[in-house]
Amino acid sequence: MLSTADRSRLTVILVGARNPSNIGAAARAMQDFGFSSLRIVNDYSAPFEAAQLEHTKSAVGAATILHNAQLFATLPDALADCTLVIGTTAVGDRTVTQPILPLQQAAPHLLTTLQTPGTPRAALLFGSEKTGLTNEQLSYCNRLTTIPMFAPEDARHLSMNLGQAVAVCLYELTRSGLEGAKPIPEPTAAPATADDRERLTQLLLEVMQLTEYTRRFPANANPPQVRSLTQPLATTHNEAETWMGILRQILWQAKKKK
Amino acid sequence: MLSTADRSRLTVILVGARNPSNIGAAARAMQDFGFSSLRIVNDYSAPFEAAQLEHTKSAVGAATILHNAQLFATLPDALADCTLVIGTTAVGDRTVTQPILPLQQAAPHLLTTLQTPGTPRAALLFGSEKTGLTNEQLSYCNRLTTIPMFAPEDARHLSMNLGQAVAVCLYELTRSGLEGAKPIPEPTAAPATADDRERLTQLLLEVMQLTEYTRRFPANANPPQVRSLTQPLATTHNEAETWMGILRQILWQAKKKK
Repeated sequence: MLSTADRSRLTVILVGARNPSNIGAAARAMQDFGFSSLRIVNDYSAPFEAAQLEHTKSAVGAATILHNAQLFATLPDALADCTLVIGTTAVGDRTVTQPILPLQQAAPHLLTTLQTPGTPRAALLFGSEKTGLTNEQLSYCNRLTTIPMFAPEDARHLSMNLGQAVAVCLYELTRSGLEGAKPIPEPTAAPATADDRERLTQLLLEVMQLTEYTRRFPANANPPQVRSLTQPLATTHNEAETWMGILRQILWQAKKKK
Repeated sequence: MLSTADRSRLTVILVGARNPSNIGAAARAMQDFGFSSLRIVNDYSAPFEAAQLEHTKSAVGAATILHNAQLFATLPDALADCTLVIGTTAVGDRTVTQPILPLQQAAPHLLTTLQTPGTPRAALLFGSEKTGLTNEQLSYCNRLTTIPMFAPEDARHLSMNLGQAVAVCLYELTRSGLEGAKPIPEPTAAPATADDRERLTQLLLEVMQLTEYTRRFPANANPPQVRSLTQPLATTHNEAETWMGILRQILWQAKKKK
């Protein structure tokens, strides 16, 4: 489980993003998954400034992240205080010297770093919409990762939308951080008992009898058969009560008219 | 590993999406992860048509998916041929009767269905940008899932960007599909479809009306409530047929005596 302090150790770095909406979308994804440190690397500030202006539109609730984001002119400046630096890349026909780990294998390394108290900072880098991270930019990374996509034979070039790529990476961190965590508790409602189910079975048998279903379809109306139908009916005791109420009402009406 | 045939069994359904760029972004995410069947549920066609027009801008390479996407006026129509129906929802303060599984726990169910030869179709539903899926729309789902997000104490409402939510869900499927997936045994019986379940719901509503259950217990007799009762009734098409036979026989008797 990633604590708030763990999360604060991650910095998302967008390198050369051109589209202000994508910067806003990245900030929104960060907010959804509880990360707050954003850095923008760009030799001109227009897209970042436009994203800050537009944030009310494109980055619901992410205004604070954009407001606190920092602009850097060069990648080395943006990375200076980071220990682990992970670069994202589409595999494609790029020739890189480092191994490229699928995201689900890279996430544990990043998690371990984030969960180490005293780690100054870990960085997750995303390249521009057009080109992704260049080989030169990738060379600043300790590790490279790629989001496993579906590449048909004829795919020349697969690349993800920047906001979606950020969302998927932060989801993977959150997801991997949850493993070993307890599953979300089942609803606390009292479960249906075998007795509830058997009473349902008997009521349904009676309904089938009274409405002459049993006479017309005897093969479907023997108790084991009917029991297999009523088994899945009720998970909770309340559901069982509701079904019993419905069946009793049917019986009441059917008998009244006899 | 999800094969191309497995992937073709999944339909992504966007319910009430308003923003054409989001429809385009969803199509793009589908293309990235190799899924192609998209359905749009909307009572007016403008956002879908705008998305088709804009696709060269907002949905790089996803033109074919948008071109082949189908528009439906109602959710039951869009779901009719689907067996497993999974609805996505932000947990928030919604009160739903079904348990909500975190995405990483829901994915294996969906994968199993997709990897079962002969499965007609599984559906993954996303609600509108403003409201998400309503309780009424959620009542058509067999299972509910949520993307685990980071909710600080003061978060009133967390919701993800639509395109990002689609990307995260399809990533999880791709990711889970990569984990040593075991072969799934052939199904021995045709599974129940959403249309089967909806016909059961309508028959039960009619029975409740005719037997005056609705008048006496109106709180238990609204359609979403009844739908939650009928969801677990039938796993197979044959079970659905048996239940329909029982309900029709009740109706026949009740009407005969009027």
